[in-house]
Amino acid sequence: MPKLQDVKKVVLAYSGGLDTSIIAKWLQTELGAEVVTFTADLGQGESDLEPARRKAQDMGIKEIFIRDVREEFVKDFVFPMFRANAQYEGVYLLGTSIARPLISKHLVEIARETGADAVAHGATGKGNDQVRFELSAYALNPDIKVIAPWRDWTFKSRTDLLNFARDHQIQIAKDKLGEAPFSVDANLLHSSSEGKVLEDPWVEAPEYVHQRSVSPMDAPDQVTEIVISFRKGDPVAIDGKEMSPATLLSALNDLGRDNGIGRLDLVENRFVGMKSRGVYETPGGTILLAAHRAIESITLDRGAAHLKDELMPRYAELIYNGFWFSPEREMLQALIDKSQEEVEGDVRLKLYKGNVIVTGRRSPKSLYSDALVTFEDDRGAYDQKDAEGFIRLNGLRLRTLAARKRKS
Amino acid sequence: MPKLQDVKKVVLAYSGGLDTSIIAKWLQTELGAEVVTFTADLGQGESDLEPARRKAQDMGIKEIFIRDVREEFVKDFVFPMFRANAQYEGVYLLGTSIARPLISKHLVEIARETGADAVAHGATGKGNDQVRFELSAYALNPDIKVIAPWRDWTFKSRTDLLNFARDHQIQIAKDKLGEAPFSVDANLLHSSSEGKVLEDPWVEAPEYVHQRSVSPMDAPDQVTEIVISFRKGDPVAIDGKEMSPATLLSALNDLGRDNGIGRLDLVENRFVGMKSRGVYETPGGTILLAAHRAIESITLDRGAAHLKDELMPRYAELIYNGFWFSPEREMLQALIDKSQEEVEGDVRLKLYKGNVIVTGRRSPKSLYSDALVTFEDDRGAYDQKDAEGFIRLNGLRLRTLAARKRKS
Amino acid sequence: MPKLQDVKKVVLAYSGGLDTSIIAKWLQTELGAEVVTFTADLGQGESDLEPARRKAQDMGIKEIFIRDVREEFVKDFVFPMFRANAQYEGVYLLGTSIARPLISKHLVEIARETGADAVAHGATGKGNDQVRFELSAYALNPDIKVIAPWRDWTFKSRTDLLNFARDHQIQIAKDKLGEAPFSVDANLLHSSSEGKVLEDPWVEAPEYVHQRSVSPMDAPDQVTEIVISFRKGDPVAIDGKEMSPATLLSALNDLGRDNGIGRLDLVENRFVGMKSRGVYETPGGTILLAAHRAIESITLDRGAAHLKDELMPRYAELIYNGFWFSPEREMLQALIDKSQEEVEGDVRLKLYKGNVIVTGRRSPKSLYSDALVTFEDDRGAYDQKDAEGFIRLNGLRLRTLAARKRKS
Amino acid sequence: MPKLQDVKKVVLAYSGGLDTSIIAKWLQTELGAEVVTFTADLGQGESDLEPARRKAQDMGIKEIFIRDVREEFVKDFVFPMFRANAQYEGVYLLGTSIARPLISKHLVEIARETGADAVAHGATGKGNDQVRFELSAYALNPDIKVIAPWRDWTFKSRTDLLNFARDHQIQIAKDKLGEAPFSVDANLLHSSSEGKVLEDPWVEAPEYVHQRSVSPMDAPDQVTEIVISFRKGDPVAIDGKEMSPATLLSALNDLGRDNGIGRLDLVENRFVGMKSRGVYETPGGTILLAAHRAIESITLDRGAAHLKDELMPRYAELIYNGFWFSPEREMLQALIDKSQEEVEGDVRLKLYKGNVIVTGRRSPKSLYSDALVTFEDDRGAYDQKDAEGFIRLNGLRLRTLAARKRKS
Repeated sequence: MPKLQDVKKVVLAYSGGLDTSIIAKWLQTELGAEVVTFTADLGQGESDLEPARRKAQDMGIKEIFIRDVREEFVKDFVFPMFRANAQYEGVYLLGTSIARPLISKHLVEIARETGADAVAHGATGKGNDQVRFELSAYALNPDIKVIAPWRDWTFKSRTDLLNFARDHQIQIAKDKLGEAPFSVDANLLHSSSEGKVLEDPWVEAPEYVHQRSVSPMDAPDQVTEIVISFRKGDPVAIDGKEMSPATLLSALNDLGRDNGIGRLDLVENRFVGMKSRGVYETPGGTILLAAHRAIESITLDRGAAHLKDELMPRYAELIYNGFWFSPEREMLQALIDKSQEEVEGDVRLKLYKGNVIVTGRRSPKSLYSDALVTFEDDRGAYDQKDAEGFIRLNGLRLRTLAARKRKS
Repeated sequence: MPKLQDVKKVVLAYSGGLDTSIIAKWLQTELGAEVVTFTADLGQGESDLEPARRKAQDMGIKEIFIRDVREEFVKDFVFPMFRANAQYEGVYLLGTSIARPLISKHLVEIARETGADAVAHGATGKGNDQVRFELSAYALNPDIKVIAPWRDWTFKSRTDLLNFARDHQIQIAKDKLGEAPFSVDANLLHSSSEGKVLEDPWVEAPEYVHQRSVSPMDAPDQVTEIVISFRKGDPVAIDGKEMSPATLLSALNDLGRDNGIGRLDLVENRFVGMKSRGVYETPGGTILLAAHRAIESITLDRGAAHLKDELMPRYAELIYNGFWFSPEREMLQALIDKSQEEVEGDVRLKLYKGNVIVTGRRSPKSLYSDALVTFEDDRGAYDQKDAEGFIRLNGLRLRTLAARKRKS
Repeated sequence: MPKLQDVKKVVLAYSGGLDTSIIAKWLQTELGAEVVTFTADLGQGESDLEPARRKAQDMGIKEIFIRDVREEFVKDFVFPMFRANAQYEGVYLLGTSIARPLISKHLVEIARETGADAVAHGATGKGNDQVRFELSAYALNPDIKVIAPWRDWTFKSRTDLLNFARDHQIQIAKDKLGEAPFSVDANLLHSSSEGKVLEDPWVEAPEYVHQRSVSPMDAPDQVTEIVISFRKGDPVAIDGKEMSPATLLSALNDLGRDNGIGRLDLVENRFVGMKSRGVYETPGGTILLAAHRAIESITLDRGAAHLKDELMPRYAELIYNGFWFSPEREMLQALIDKSQEEVEGDVRLKLYKGNVIVTGRRSPKSLYSDALVTFEDDRGAYDQKDAEGFIRLNGLRLRTLAARKRKS
Repeated sequence: MPKLQDVKKVVLAYSGGLDTSIIAKWLQTELGAEVVTFTADLGQGESDLEPARRKAQDMGIKEIFIRDVREEFVKDFVFPMFRANAQYEGVYLLGTSIARPLISKHLVEIARETGADAVAHGATGKGNDQVRFELSAYALNPDIKVIAPWRDWTFKSRTDLLNFARDHQIQIAKDKLGEAPFSVDANLLHSSSEGKVLEDPWVEAPEYVHQRSVSPMDAPDQVTEIVISFRKGDPVAIDGKEMSPATLLSALNDLGRDNGIGRLDLVENRFVGMKSRGVYETPGGTILLAAHRAIESITLDRGAAHLKDELMPRYAELIYNGFWFSPEREMLQALIDKSQEEVEGDVRLKLYKGNVIVTGRRSPKSLYSDALVTFEDDRGAYDQKDAEGFIRLNGLRLRTLAARKRKS
């Protein structure tokens, strides 16, 4: 890979915002590199990406890539991850983590298409995102140079940054003049808020940091009931209406947002070694997780389900740490996908003021057997005498241990 | 161990209810064995256990043991389990599973004290409880005979049972004359309901199966805020008021019950091989789990936390399957307890209509470092340049893989 | 499934030996069932299976199936297992375990072809093989009846058995008149010996229990050097000569046998709950394991290799316990097979008096990079400065812990 | 921690050899720091450490620490690790890895005693040892500065180094004038050789790289038989003679060396991301591992043994990666140590030309039961009928799956 000073052309993950505009200009002026921008519609909520194009043009950028990657994001990243019921540290649905490899994939592709020798991102040197961007890029192109201006430039303060922006005619929105009270990431799966007002983990997160959900306290007093249908472990329909992946997740987001679902206030362990506190909103994902577990509960065998559960924390950690494009994640995915072949059917849920309540599940592939489980006469499906031998042989080693203990 | 027909004296886990009364009589009449009863106050909600004593006396039983084991239950079984954040199949808090080894422990002790050669329980041949009772008994006394009348007797129907009861002057409460629409287990940690009206997993559980919580929809419109304090991973106080383990769990149960917290409708995989559907209520336990995870989030190191998370499903499975008194559970407990030494501090929670919302956590042992994580100047606590090397070495093997892929 | 007494036609795993001949006759006379025999050439060392046919014919059996399943055995069972480097309890290569599901598969297929409603095997009620036969059969046909005569019949002693044989004109070889000093199982992968003279685990196994290898002490004083070639994780050639799976394993067996390789004297934990002592000989498999690990060492990425290593004990346990045809084994196989796509190349080995010594490995897919690892000038492949950041961030949480410890 | 240029006093891990002498001088001259030396007798084979003292004195060093840490090394590091049967990547006994934390512990202690603000080591920037030294140091003193001169100095070549040595009157042994054909690390547990002549993994390691064992081909033609005795999982005696930990390991080393035991030629995955090839000799450790597994085979319950086996790769990886002083290693150690309480008894072994052959094991705590396992009449210890129920309930879920498969 080239050294920083030798980079000739760089593809920048460009939001159109102040920070990445400063980065674009810095790459042009300080490195003397030609800049290509990539702006993705990940469902972050800005449906109009044309301002990003205009701003890039204003900076003299000639190759501007704007792509709607929402369906790819949900189909190839979010849904595979939800097949695993992935939760980092028991609770976090990995909304930021799962978007980064997708962005890097496009950056690397565009670099190849445009003959760029580097890619650049706007993540800082303290967070996980730099790791995710860069590991993904390295895994897709071993020779790519990754530039992380937040680690490389010499600005000491926000004032320095703003001065640089002014010096280079970069437009500064009024609300960016002061310090933002927190920083935000958003995509179709979630929004996250970190920093500033959230830095003391004892202090309650203010209501205004929440981006995309009403508070449970403000949600309607009425229950909303829905049915989600699954095929091969992925949701395919809501209330019988088939939808594309991104459309379906959007619809779940709307349902979740309105019912105060999916908020999380978490102190988590970053891969780079410190603890941080974040507020996450994953309205649709929270519903999806509950529904997916419910459809698995009748279609997955115990052996399959327990193996998945045991490997899930590892799988989630890999995604959190940025190892989406690693052999071990792909191996785990092969294992998980193998388990999902018969995961199909319907789950009925009640949504109510922050609650996602499973009230029913059914499947043509159900392994639930009324005949086996009934307290009534089961007509020979299950011989209770079998239990005695089952228990006695399971207990044999424990009895042997007990005999040893007594002897000593 | 003696054969069934050779048993001379048997300690029965006796609730005072119809079923275990029939069992007592059956042991006396069919096996000709002397019966000793053990009735435990596990916090199942019947504070007065004297009726059990009278009924036992009426059957001519001479050795009657009634013990309040609530503190032992919470201190030695429930709290150690919660240190692990144990959830079976991702969601179930193991309220029934964790009580069984305690009962077996007392049965075996009483058998030793009274010279009995057998113990007996009232669990059926289809469920998990028989396994838990019996494995625990075998692990504590390798020569004990365990009698499970539901597997051994020849009654074919509930009518047969009731006839036997009538023939032996066992009192039958009016509401027991028909079939119960579902069966219930309860203790200080939880209530469970299974069977009959719950057998179709697509049909919503009726409100009346719930024993110990109001519905989220019926819970107050006001938020209840509490602070739970921990020491060595166990809760020790609510709102600054120190309490004994059982008292504390009772208080959490009251808070949970009133706020519609802790309901679960689940299709689970039994150890004996079939799926079953249960409705669980674990009001206090649900609050406790959220609080415990929150205090761990600032006091447990990442390495410790992730190792615990990876081993939790195994630990939960062991308890569910009845292996509390096994070397592997004890080994895992040693690992878990080792991690809890510094888990202390306060967690603030909002309880609201089924929601348990963590709003703050603090600890004298906190590993959260404002200095490290801040977006502001951290005065050298963290050198962002370090991240570059960190990422590059983490990515080295991925780049090597990518180079191979490109070559081929 | 039918009850024992209702079985009409049964497919028996038939070796042609005394025990399974007695079983065939017992099935005919005591159950009144029609018997179909299945005799497999698994490479157990009896190349001529015609005597089994004649004996079956002599008993009036009309449907006699004799199949050479050696290639199927090695290709579909042994090699997939070796991809995982499976070793039960750290050392045992699972030679008996892996053959049982194959036999059950054929039994169930033949039952379907011949309209039989049951299958039968000659494994005893104390061992693992009964479990493996039966779980495999159940997994392939949920309604099949499995008959295990050793558990069902009423013979009390070997004398009873021999009397039954004599009464029914079953030929008894002279050496079967007394008790065999140990029992043997054999197939192309291994031989095992158990029981009798081996029952005291302190007493050294006599040399004569070994079936298919010379003692290391008796092996040649000269080193034998070979090269094994792999593709997709499976061995395909020895010294450049491509061979079919069974031919290759046979060739390795010859090499191992002559060089005293692959003996194991083990006390293991049976699935049914007790410990047993066995002597195993796996000459070719022992060579194969060493070679497979060696080719993986240069073609598998660390993440892939470590994940495999962590899951191997579980995978081996599943096979040992008889769960070959289970979803969890298949999920793990999917994970393992995914890892093997690029596992190809050559491994050079020295075989010498019980030793398998890896002396070289090379691959067109090698991930080993001379440029990276060299102590010499690496021309920028690796920047030693990266290590500092790598270590500092890996150590950050440890320093935070150390700071806490010092404070208290 | 201080910046490099601000370091005032540094404790150096000093072998007395050329490289660490150059480092000492470089620390004095380039950093202007006062140097304290620590030289440890880890059993590396140089019984006389006085030359190291003299050389340090010659460089004007005033505080010179020379410690015999052999007993501490074996008792507190090696034996705990062997309780886990730890093998990295299936085969490597971690001989280098386990010594590093011990050295760091002493460096940090001496730094505290002498008021030094830094420690220094002679490991290069490409290897694992730098990680192990530094993570251990950070875990023991969060503010310590660790200096790794190989990463920091500006020497470009060996010639530069030798010139620096000459300029500063550092004695250069003749055999150090050229390039060493490989580099060596040694301690009481093992020797390792890496680099140069070993860099092509297809080329056989030359005999002369081996430091402490004869080749199997050159070992005696006679078998050596020994008995090793264990208490709480640790070896305590050979042939009935009790020995201290270091004495015992030394004795095993002698036995192993003479019998050609414990050589390993391995391509392994370094923590810093590349593959490297090493030749290891662990004569005593190889014997110890076999013996420990054998004593566990009769004294560890299956549940305990399998849990240990599943966690071993993780435990080994932690040690390899340098996380000895981490909470997760300590948690795993608590789990492992819990399992070893009853691991005691004798193991008889034959040592012969590279082979370690277990021929017997016995223990007052044995869980092996002749009565259970016998093919003969077991007088009711085991009821073969129990197996039927055991298998049927284990197979129930598989039959349910099979029924589903047939339906579709």
